[in-house]
Amino acid sequence: MAHKIGVGLLGMGNVGGGVARLLTEGRLIGRRGLDLELRKALVRDLSRPRRVALPEGALTTDPSAVVDDPGIHVVAEQMGGIEPARTLVLRALRNGKDVVTANKAMIAECGDELFRTAAEHGVELMFEASVCGGIPIIRTLTEGLVANRIQSLYGILNGTTNYILTKMTEEGGSFVEMLRQAQEKGFAEPDPTFDINGMDATQKLSILARIAFGTAVRVDQVFREGIDRIEDQDIAFARELGYTIKLLAVARAVAGRLEVRVHPAMIPSTELIANIRNEFNAVEVVGDAVGTQVFYGRGAGEMPTASAVVSDIVDVAGRRCGGGRRGGSVWADEARMPVVPVEEVVTSYYLRFIVVDQPGVLALIARILAEEKISIESVIQHGRSEDTVPLIIMTHEAPERAMRRAVAEIDRLEIVKEPTRVIRVERP
Amino acid sequence: MAHKIGVGLLGMGNVGGGVARLLTEGRLIGRRGLDLELRKALVRDLSRPRRVALPEGALTTDPSAVVDDPGIHVVAEQMGGIEPARTLVLRALRNGKDVVTANKAMIAECGDELFRTAAEHGVELMFEASVCGGIPIIRTLTEGLVANRIQSLYGILNGTTNYILTKMTEEGGSFVEMLRQAQEKGFAEPDPTFDINGMDATQKLSILARIAFGTAVRVDQVFREGIDRIEDQDIAFARELGYTIKLLAVARAVAGRLEVRVHPAMIPSTELIANIRNEFNAVEVVGDAVGTQVFYGRGAGEMPTASAVVSDIVDVAGRRCGGGRRGGSVWADEARMPVVPVEEVVTSYYLRFIVVDQPGVLALIARILAEEKISIESVIQHGRSEDTVPLIIMTHEAPERAMRRAVAEIDRLEIVKEPTRVIRVERP
Repeated sequence: MAHKIGVGLLGMGNVGGGVARLLTEGRLIGRRGLDLELRKALVRDLSRPRRVALPEGALTTDPSAVVDDPGIHVVAEQMGGIEPARTLVLRALRNGKDVVTANKAMIAECGDELFRTAAEHGVELMFEASVCGGIPIIRTLTEGLVANRIQSLYGILNGTTNYILTKMTEEGGSFVEMLRQAQEKGFAEPDPTFDINGMDATQKLSILARIAFGTAVRVDQVFREGIDRIEDQDIAFARELGYTIKLLAVARAVAGRLEVRVHPAMIPSTELIANIRNEFNAVEVVGDAVGTQVFYGRGAGEMPTASAVVSDIVDVAGRRCGGGRRGGSVWADEARMPVVPVEEVVTSYYLRFIVVDQPGVLALIARILAEEKISIESVIQHGRSEDTVPLIIMTHEAPERAMRRAVAEIDRLEIVKEPTRVIRVERP
Repeated sequence: MAHKIGVGLLGMGNVGGGVARLLTEGRLIGRRGLDLELRKALVRDLSRPRRVALPEGALTTDPSAVVDDPGIHVVAEQMGGIEPARTLVLRALRNGKDVVTANKAMIAECGDELFRTAAEHGVELMFEASVCGGIPIIRTLTEGLVANRIQSLYGILNGTTNYILTKMTEEGGSFVEMLRQAQEKGFAEPDPTFDINGMDATQKLSILARIAFGTAVRVDQVFREGIDRIEDQDIAFARELGYTIKLLAVARAVAGRLEVRVHPAMIPSTELIANIRNEFNAVEVVGDAVGTQVFYGRGAGEMPTASAVVSDIVDVAGRRCGGGRRGGSVWADEARMPVVPVEEVVTSYYLRFIVVDQPGVLALIARILAEEKISIESVIQHGRSEDTVPLIIMTHEAPERAMRRAVAEIDRLEIVKEPTRVIRVERP
């Protein structure tokens, strides 16, 4: 009684190869009463050797053989990048195929157009693999927690930066040195710009925020700061204060508005999310009914991502066979919460001043902070052997605007010898 | 274009009341294009005041008004216990209704009969709320990780015992004292027997093992040991050795067979699962494609459990509206892995001997362990001020049978003054 569903792949790189392997290995997928047949896979080079044996003639360099073939019901896209992925996905949707994608950039940038097209043609667009690899976070937000009003979402969404920060914390090296090690071990791309500057995490957060809060959040609305200016001394001071530095993605409902930001943050080391190590990802979600939940796993990699792609294929193929379609849209924008301008975001701060080593410095700085109504929680002043010394101040909560004004004024003082380093403190 | 689906509740205690609240508060459920109407709720006492305002006449003391009413399409059962829940659920299924349940005892003990009946009548039985409250672990195993072969599952599945062990670890009190505190704070029932002796976790594990491994596991096939014999000195020695004691549920595939057991275990304190504190639950799943994943949240409580019930109602109502049914069965038994007898289970051990304080004791005990081919990893011998002293031995891996034989022989020695305490060591 199994129904035969034709599957086509766009892209047979690492993830695509993993999808092909999972589909052709005779796994528990059969439990769901499905018979999935991998019919065509778009590749760039037919002659390249493949680790997965596909049926004769399944490989093709012609996109049309995948997106126009009436025998293909579900198309899985894992080419990455916006074009030609977007054009091919649109054509598949218009041809009445369900589409499953691992492409976070495409969903984050072109989601509105893609979901509208899917709805117009009565087909589905699934994107579990686009965020956090194998962790079923999209499914959890759209189904498992459907009865909740989400209050906040904190995520470690980028494995490369988490690997680098973990090594800096545990082994004490510099950012540049640890980045090089991460590249050698394959945890960072040859060009890691989008990981390091937070863009990868930002695209993922814009997707998660939309799903969790029912509000469209453009990538350029997310406040973004990378990890390249984190120094080993900041990591050491954080540890001394009982904190761990992570690249944190935050989406939080505050009085009817939405905070969305990606930046390095100091998190109390006792928090579960501070203990997510190496290349792992985690998402902490607080729902008003369930309270705090954390989902942890590998956020990238060939097989974890392929696992998520196949879970979507099975899901959508199941609905296609059962004759039912999912009602409503997970890509809704009915809440339309305005985004809080970053100047109005309230957090605590770690401030590292590099100052001349003379009496009265703390008094000067404290006065400027007090004028901006920023109150001090603790101060660390070590080592008095060099001309300049670091002065660490942890503040209580204050709006970003006040902190920026204070730091700008402090940085104009003659006793301050380097631009002040600011790291936000988060207590999820 | 919303479809109207009639919902009936069996039971309006804490969880039932929570379900009613979530259904009647106008939440994001509407996003899914559904119109859920709470039509009837079975209660024991019509006159008892309720925190949720239900429509006039919705409360009833007549089960038939819920399970026989053709206007009710989905029945949610949260009465607990096997009867009368089982009889009413069977009647609802036979009447063509989908059933959602929070009842772990009923699913663990009567799952075969219930799922067979559901299949015969072309309806669905959903049970997300039966394990780990609000954590969407059933959905994750059956959908999110569908493409994986699950290799192992480690869970902290009982909040009461985790709360007690956390307090013993962090505050240093005795088991009896911490149990009393847990009862005062509402984290332990007036009769906590099934929590303390591991039966609650065992029922949950039998459900999770079936879903994860596609293998029927009866509750009486799970090896079970409670936490009532854990002493504060064991907790202190564990900490000294870098371990944390948890009531751990384990299901693990080993050479085509399945280990299923619930017992106190010493876990390296650096493991994420060792850091699950207080009443929280967590499940660590290792799948061959995704690697290690951890799911963390509140495993019990009115609103978390209600959240899971409503997620199932939304899911099944969505399929009912869309006209589609889920293919296959999540309650499959096609793998039929035999259960490993506990005597053959291999772990490392913590052994606490209470011995007379004289030379040669360690030599005697070490000889008996060596005869059973159990090798020693480390030894601790503190304080030599009393007649008897604790002698701690951590072993390397050995089969349970060898360990039991060795301990039986050691306990017959005249120098051994109390039955030896054995705690298994797990390194997930």
